[in-house]
Amino acid sequence: AVPGGDATKLKLRTTIRFKIGDKVGALTDVLRELRQLNVDLTRIESRPREAGTYQFYLDFGARDEAQIDEICNHMRSFTEDLQVVSTGDMGLVSMQTAPWFPRKKSDMDTFAEKVMEYGDELDADHPGFTDPVYRERRAEITRIAKTYKYGQELPRIQYTAQETATWGIVYKKLTALYKTHACREHQYVLPLLEHNCAYAPDNIPQIEDVSRFMKESTGWTLRPVMGLLSSRDFLNALAFRVFHSTQYIRHHSQPLYTPEPDVCHELLGHVPLYADPDFADFSQEIGLASLGASDEDIEKLATIYWFTVEFGLCRQGDEVRAYGAGLLSSFGELEYCLSDKPQKVPFDPKLAATQKYPITEYQPLYFVAHSFKEMKEQVRDYAATMQRPFAVRYNALTESVEVLDTKDKTLRYAQNIKGELMRLISAIEKN
Amino acid sequence: AVPGGDATKLKLRTTIRFKIGDKVGALTDVLRELRQLNVDLTRIESRPREAGTYQFYLDFGARDEAQIDEICNHMRSFTEDLQVVSTGDMGLVSMQTAPWFPRKKSDMDTFAEKVMEYGDELDADHPGFTDPVYRERRAEITRIAKTYKYGQELPRIQYTAQETATWGIVYKKLTALYKTHACREHQYVLPLLEHNCAYAPDNIPQIEDVSRFMKESTGWTLRPVMGLLSSRDFLNALAFRVFHSTQYIRHHSQPLYTPEPDVCHELLGHVPLYADPDFADFSQEIGLASLGASDEDIEKLATIYWFTVEFGLCRQGDEVRAYGAGLLSSFGELEYCLSDKPQKVPFDPKLAATQKYPITEYQPLYFVAHSFKEMKEQVRDYAATMQRPFAVRYNALTESVEVLDTKDKTLRYAQNIKGELMRLISAIEKN
Amino acid sequence: AVPGGDATKLKLRTTIRFKIGDKVGALTDVLRELRQLNVDLTRIESRPREAGTYQFYLDFGARDEAQIDEICNHMRSFTEDLQVVSTGDMGLVSMQTAPWFPRKKSDMDTFAEKVMEYGDELDADHPGFTDPVYRERRAEITRIAKTYKYGQELPRIQYTAQETATWGIVYKKLTALYKTHACREHQYVLPLLEHNCAYAPDNIPQIEDVSRFMKESTGWTLRPVMGLLSSRDFLNALAFRVFHSTQYIRHHSQPLYTPEPDVCHELLGHVPLYADPDFADFSQEIGLASLGASDEDIEKLATIYWFTVEFGLCRQGDEVRAYGAGLLSSFGELEYCLSDKPQKVPFDPKLAATQKYPITEYQPLYFVAHSFKEMKEQVRDYAATMQRPFAVRYNALTESVEVLDTKDKTLRYAQNIKGELMRLISAIEKN
Amino acid sequence: AVPGGDATKLKLRTTIRFKIGDKVGALTDVLRELRQLNVDLTRIESRPREAGTYQFYLDFGARDEAQIDEICNHMRSFTEDLQVVSTGDMGLVSMQTAPWFPRKKSDMDTFAEKVMEYGDELDADHPGFTDPVYRERRAEITRIAKTYKYGQELPRIQYTAQETATWGIVYKKLTALYKTHACREHQYVLPLLEHNCAYAPDNIPQIEDVSRFMKESTGWTLRPVMGLLSSRDFLNALAFRVFHSTQYIRHHSQPLYTPEPDVCHELLGHVPLYADPDFADFSQEIGLASLGASDEDIEKLATIYWFTVEFGLCRQGDEVRAYGAGLLSSFGELEYCLSDKPQKVPFDPKLAATQKYPITEYQPLYFVAHSFKEMKEQVRDYAATMQRPFAVRYNALTESVEVLDTKDKTLRYAQNIKGELMRLISAIEKN
Repeated sequence: AVPGGDATKLKLRTTIRFKIGDKVGALTDVLRELRQLNVDLTRIESRPREAGTYQFYLDFGARDEAQIDEICNHMRSFTEDLQVVSTGDMGLVSMQTAPWFPRKKSDMDTFAEKVMEYGDELDADHPGFTDPVYRERRAEITRIAKTYKYGQELPRIQYTAQETATWGIVYKKLTALYKTHACREHQYVLPLLEHNCAYAPDNIPQIEDVSRFMKESTGWTLRPVMGLLSSRDFLNALAFRVFHSTQYIRHHSQPLYTPEPDVCHELLGHVPLYADPDFADFSQEIGLASLGASDEDIEKLATIYWFTVEFGLCRQGDEVRAYGAGLLSSFGELEYCLSDKPQKVPFDPKLAATQKYPITEYQPLYFVAHSFKEMKEQVRDYAATMQRPFAVRYNALTESVEVLDTKDKTLRYAQNIKGELMRLISAIEKN
Repeated sequence: AVPGGDATKLKLRTTIRFKIGDKVGALTDVLRELRQLNVDLTRIESRPREAGTYQFYLDFGARDEAQIDEICNHMRSFTEDLQVVSTGDMGLVSMQTAPWFPRKKSDMDTFAEKVMEYGDELDADHPGFTDPVYRERRAEITRIAKTYKYGQELPRIQYTAQETATWGIVYKKLTALYKTHACREHQYVLPLLEHNCAYAPDNIPQIEDVSRFMKESTGWTLRPVMGLLSSRDFLNALAFRVFHSTQYIRHHSQPLYTPEPDVCHELLGHVPLYADPDFADFSQEIGLASLGASDEDIEKLATIYWFTVEFGLCRQGDEVRAYGAGLLSSFGELEYCLSDKPQKVPFDPKLAATQKYPITEYQPLYFVAHSFKEMKEQVRDYAATMQRPFAVRYNALTESVEVLDTKDKTLRYAQNIKGELMRLISAIEKN
Repeated sequence: AVPGGDATKLKLRTTIRFKIGDKVGALTDVLRELRQLNVDLTRIESRPREAGTYQFYLDFGARDEAQIDEICNHMRSFTEDLQVVSTGDMGLVSMQTAPWFPRKKSDMDTFAEKVMEYGDELDADHPGFTDPVYRERRAEITRIAKTYKYGQELPRIQYTAQETATWGIVYKKLTALYKTHACREHQYVLPLLEHNCAYAPDNIPQIEDVSRFMKESTGWTLRPVMGLLSSRDFLNALAFRVFHSTQYIRHHSQPLYTPEPDVCHELLGHVPLYADPDFADFSQEIGLASLGASDEDIEKLATIYWFTVEFGLCRQGDEVRAYGAGLLSSFGELEYCLSDKPQKVPFDPKLAATQKYPITEYQPLYFVAHSFKEMKEQVRDYAATMQRPFAVRYNALTESVEVLDTKDKTLRYAQNIKGELMRLISAIEKN
Repeated sequence: AVPGGDATKLKLRTTIRFKIGDKVGALTDVLRELRQLNVDLTRIESRPREAGTYQFYLDFGARDEAQIDEICNHMRSFTEDLQVVSTGDMGLVSMQTAPWFPRKKSDMDTFAEKVMEYGDELDADHPGFTDPVYRERRAEITRIAKTYKYGQELPRIQYTAQETATWGIVYKKLTALYKTHACREHQYVLPLLEHNCAYAPDNIPQIEDVSRFMKESTGWTLRPVMGLLSSRDFLNALAFRVFHSTQYIRHHSQPLYTPEPDVCHELLGHVPLYADPDFADFSQEIGLASLGASDEDIEKLATIYWFTVEFGLCRQGDEVRAYGAGLLSSFGELEYCLSDKPQKVPFDPKLAATQKYPITEYQPLYFVAHSFKEMKEQVRDYAATMQRPFAVRYNALTESVEVLDTKDKTLRYAQNIKGELMRLISAIEKN
C-alpha cells in the first residue's frame, strides 16, 4: 500500500501490460521505479516471451485518470509496448484489493495475449515435436485464435485430409465405447450433435456450429484459445458460460494419444456435457466462485474442476459411468476408470478441493457424483463457504458480471427475483 | 377442428406461407381444399403483395411430419412459393390453439417477409412521394434490412450529405428542447450516446454501434426492419428485448415532419430510454404479455404501448416531463404536450388499454406515469389479469422464450429462483 | 430534541402514563419540568378521565435505565399513578422518533387502559341512556374486559334471556337477507360457525369459542375491549391478527339499531370474513402498514378500513355483494347498499384513503372490490408507497413484530424465505 | 386393501383405539373380524397396559362416516373402551397410505394415552425402584400430565424441599462446568433463564414460565409428558415447535445419575438451546421430515436426533464444545466428551443417520457440527433426499401442518412467499 496513502480513495483499478528485455536486474529496476512513483501495486504476473524478453502484467489502484497517465508515461521510458489493459471504478473497498476479473464477455479478449504457453510451443516428448509441417499448422491455427474478438463469428478451419483421418480414428474408437462407459447425458446429446453440427467420422465439426448449438441448449458458447490459459483466466470464463476451446488436432502418428487438449478432447469430451442444463449450471458455479478469488481458492476450484469436468464419474442407476472430458476423450483411461483398479469415493467438494493428483498418468482416485443436480448444489454450498468479501451475479441480458456492492444493485436484484417469482406463480396457476 | 379428430394429438404446430394470384374466388378454392384435407386450421392472415397477388400465412396443427408434407405437396399444385415458416411441438394442449409466437431470437428472421407495408410504399401525401431519388433510396435501405439474419452485424448505411443535413436540423432543434421537456433518464443517457455511439449534429449514428451500447446497458438490441410490422409481431419482439428499427430518414423537404417512424424517431426518441433499466424491464413486460395473446389483448397491449412508449409523460419531482418517443422526436408535440392544452391523467393500464386516440394529430389526452419502476409493476399486474392459459418466461442465456407447461420446467425454474435467492442472501451478507 | 444532545444515543424508547388533577396550568407545569430535565419528548397523548382528572401518555427517548428512573422519580412528585408502560431498545435511528407501536401480542394488554371512550359511557341519544339496569350491565361487561390479559381464556358472559332475545331478532332478520346480499365467503362460513361455535337464533356465541375457530382457520383471534380504541391502537392490533371485540349487546328497545359496535356487529358482521384466508391477509396488511405510521397515514389507513372492512362491497360474478361488517350487521343499510341509490366505484386504495364519509347515516358512496386477493395486493402496493423509514414483519412463531433494522435480521429473514422456497420446490416436485 | 375396492376412494383416514383382554388368540380374533368387514388397514400398534390387557391403535381408510360407524359398532362387541382418536380427509392418494401424523397442535392431546412406558414404571435397577414415596410422587406428577390439554396453562408443581435439594446439587455441579464445556449459545441463554424464569440453585423452574420464555424467543413451547413417547410421536411434535418435557426429578439418593430424562435434563440440557434461532429451526426441520415418514426414515431421524440434540458437539473458534442435552445434563459425560478418549468426526446427516450407538454408557463417537446454521441446512438437504411422496409446511398462524397436495395450496403458499419477498425488499430498501 502507499505510504501515507489511503486505500479507500484508490478507486480506479488498473491493469497494464509491458515487456522488458532480459538484462540482469530488469525487474528490480521496474519495481524500484514503481516504489518511487508511490504506486499501490496489488498484483504482478510475468511470463517469458520470445527469446530474451518477459511480459509483465501489473494491477494497481489509482486516484484518477491523471495518475494513470503519469505512471504510464514514466514507465514507457524503460519498458516496451506498454498498454493499459483495463481500468475501472471498483466500487466497494473490498473490491479494490481483490485480483482483477472480467466484468464483460468482451473483457475475455484480453486473455488471448496472456496464455501461459502457446499452442505451438511443443515439449520435446510431444509426438509432433520434430514435424515442422505439423508445427507450422499449429502456429497457423493459433494465430487465427489470436485475432478473434468478442462478437465475431468463430473461425472456421479447413481441416486437411490427414487431420480428418486422425479425427476419424479417434471418433470410431471412442463412440464404440460410449454406450457402455459414457453417462446417459453424453449419450443423449451425441446424436443431436451428429444431426445439428455435422459430427461424423469423416468430418471435424466447426466450433462456430457447435457453439450455436450449445447457445440454444444452455447458453454456453465456445471461444478459440491460443494455448494454455492460467487457471484463473480459464475458470473466470466459465462464469460467463464461455468455454475456451483449441482447434488444432493431435499428431497423426499417435491418434489415440495427446499430451494436451486438442479438438478431439474438446468436441467429444467437453461439448456434449455442456448441452445438459444441470452440468451447465454446475460449471458456471465454479466460474462464479473463481471471480476475484484468492490464489489458494483458485487452486482449490481448479482441483474441483479437475476431479469433475475433466475426470468425473457419476452414479446412474446401479452403474457408475464417466462424464469427465479427460476420460471421454481417452480410449485407455475410459476403460480403466470403470474397472476395479482405481479407488472411487463419493464426490465431496471439500475433499476434492485439496486432493493431490498426477497429471501424466491415469488417475488412482476418482470422485463419483450422485447427480449433476446434486453436484450443482454441493458446489454452490461449497462456494458459499469461501471467504470472498463481495457477492457477484451473472447478468445474462447484458452478458456481464455484476458485483452486488451497493444497496441499489442488491435492491434491483431482489426486485428481479420478485418478478421471477410472479412468473413462477403464474406457471403454478396455469398448469 | 378435424371431424372425428382429436385436437390433443395434433401436437405439431405449423405455419406455412404462400401466394395466390388475384383471380376471383382464389381464397375460396384454397379453403375448400384445406377442408377436404381435414386440416385443423387455427389462423389465417393475408397481405396484399405486388400487383395482383396476395400472400397468405396459415397456422395449423398436424399429427406428424408426414401429414405436413402431404398437405404442402397437395397445396403446391394451386399456390405459388409455398414455404414452411416454422413447425414445432407445442406441448400443452392450450398452446395448440394459441396464435403462433417466436420461441427463439432467430425466429424473428421470419418477420422480415411479413411486414404490413414496406418502407418504400409511400402514401400520396408523403413529402417524398414524388421524389424518385428518395424513393429509390428507401427501397435500397429496405432491401438491406430484408436479408439481415440473427447473429449478423447490423447493416451500416453510408448516409449522404443531404441525409446527414436533415438529421442535423432535427438534432439541433430537439436537443435544445430536451433540457426543459425530456425526462431525467433521457437527459442522462444522451451524453453517453454522444460519447459512445457518435451521436452528433453532423453524424447519423449506426444502429450496430447503438445496439451494442444498449446490449451492454440493459440487454436490448436493435434489428433492422423493412417497414411496418403487425402489432403482434412488433410486440412479440419486445419479449426478447429486441426493438425493430428503421434506418432510412424523413424527406429533406420537411425536416421537422414525418408521417412514420424514421431513423430520427428511433435514435432520438426510443433508444435513450432503452438504456434505462426500469424502462427496459417495462417494455419487455409488454412483450411477454403479447406472446400468444388473443387479438383483443394484442390490441389492448398495443394501445398501452401507444400511451407509454410512444406518447408517455411522467412525473419527476414537481414537474411533468415527456418520455414517449413520439413526443421526444416531434418538435411541435413535445412543446404542446407539456402545455395546458391537452388533458393529463395518471397512468393506469386498465384505462389506457381501451382509450381511443387519433393517429394523425396531436394527442388530446396523455397518461402521466409516476415512475418507470411503478409502471413496470402496473403492467406486470395488468398482464397477470389477462386470460392466457399458459405461462412464459424469457431465458436470456439461450435467448429463447420458454413455455412453462410441464412440472419439469416449472421445477427447474423454481430451482433457478432458489439459486438467485442464494446469491441475494450472499449480497445481503457481504454488504 | 435535547439541546446539545444527540438523538442517536437515545436508544431507549420509553412510554410512561400518569394522571394529573384538573387545576389550571397543570399541563404547562408538567411540560416545563420535562424541559428542565432535558427530556427528549416524541409524543404526548391525553385523555379525560373520571371527574376532574386527565390521563397522559408520554413517549421519550432515554440514554439508559438510570435516566428513566431519574425522570420518573422527579415526576412522581407532581403527578399521580405514574407507571412505565414500556421501554426498549429501538435500534435504528429512524425508529426512535416513530410513534410507539406494540412489538409483542402481550403489549396489547396496555390498550385496555387507553380507550378513548368507555363502553359504559353512553351518549344522550343512545337508546339505553336512561335505562340504569342496561348501563350497569354495560359497565359490568366492560370491567371484565379490563382485567383480561394475553394468554388467558377469553371471558365467557352469561347472557340474560332479554339479551338473547335481542340477538335472536337481529339474527333472524339478517340471516334472511344474507343469501341475496352477503358475499359468497360470508355465506360459506356462517354454517361452519353454527356447527362449531353455536351460532343460533337462541344463543349468543361466546368469543372464546369463536376465537378458537378463527385461530384454526386463519390465525386470527379476538380480544375483549373496554370501549372505543384509538384508530392507531385498533389498527396496530390487526398486524398481530388480533381483532378487538365488544361483548355487550345493543338495547332491547331497538333491536335493529345501534349507534356503536356491539356483539351482533362483531359476530355477524366481522367474524365470518376473518375465516377467509385472503380477507385475513388483507386485514393484516392494513395493520402492518399502521405500525409506527405518521398520524396522517393512520387516518388514511383508518379510512381505507372504513371503506373495506366496515362498508365494502365486492363483485362476484355478475353481481355486487356486501362484505363490510357495517353492512352485514345493519338490516337497513344492507338492503340500501345494493340498491341503485348510492354511488359505487371500483376499489382503489389511493382514492379510498382520502374519501370523505358520513358516520351517522347511510353511505352515499361505496367502493367495490374485484376480489379479496386483488384487494390484498392493492393494499400491499399502497402500503409500499407510504413513507415509513423502516420495514417490519410479523413473526407468527413468536407472535411478535420484528423491525428489520439490521443486516442480521434482514439476512435471517432472507434465509427463512429460502427455506420456504425449498418447501415450495418440494411441493411442485411432488404434485 | 379391500378386495374389489379402490384405495383412491377411501379418503377418510381414521385412527381408533381399544383394549382387549389377554386371552389366547384375542388379536387373531380381532384381525379376522376386520377382514370380514373389508377394512382397509394401514397400520397396527399395540402396547401392554395394566395387568392382562393390551391397548391397540388401528389406522384404516374409510369411504365415509357411515362406514366408520359401522366398523366401530361391530368392533365394540368384542373390544373394550373403543374410541375414534381422529378421522379426516387425507386428500392426496399418497397421503392415504402414509402413517398418521398430527395436523394441528391440539392433535398432540392424543399422545398422552399412547406413551410407550409410563413415567411411574421404574426398572428394577432404577435408584428409586424400592422407594414407595418416590414412586407415588412420580405417579402423581404423571397423572397431572395425563389430563393436560392444548391451550391450558402448563401444570405448576409444588416441588418438595428434598426435590429442590436434588436440583440444587445438580445445578451447582453442572453450571460450574459450563463455562469451559458448554457451547456459546448455552452460556448466552442461561443468565436470561435465571433472570426471566427463576432458574436458581434453590428453585426448580416451572415449565409454564420456561415455555413462555421459549415462545417469545423462538416460538417453541413445552408440553408435559406422561412417560416415554414413541420416536414417531416425539419427533412429529418437533414439527410444531413442541417439546415434550418431564416434570419429575431423579431420585435423591443419586443426584448425579438418572437412567432417563427428568426435569434437570430438560431444563438444563434442552431448554437453553431452544432459545437459539438456528438450533430452533434445525430441530423443527427434523420434526417436519418425520411427518408421515416410513418407519425406516423415522429410525434414521431419531438417530440424527440422538447424535445432535442429545449428544452433539460443535466447533466454536479453535475449540470443541458440547450442545447436546445428554451431555449438558451429565456431569461425567460432559467432561469425558471433550477429552481425547472418544472419537470425533464432522457432522454429516447421511453418516449420522445409520451410525450405531450404545444407550447405557458414554458414547464412543461424537459428531462435531460446524455451526447450527450449517447443521440446519444439512438436515434440510438430507430431508429433501427422503422419499416422502408429499410436501408439508408448518403454518405458524394456525399452528397446523399443511399438506401441499393441491394446486390451490401450492399457489397460496407461493403467493405468501411473494409477500415475504416484498417485505424483504422493503427491508433492503430501508436499511
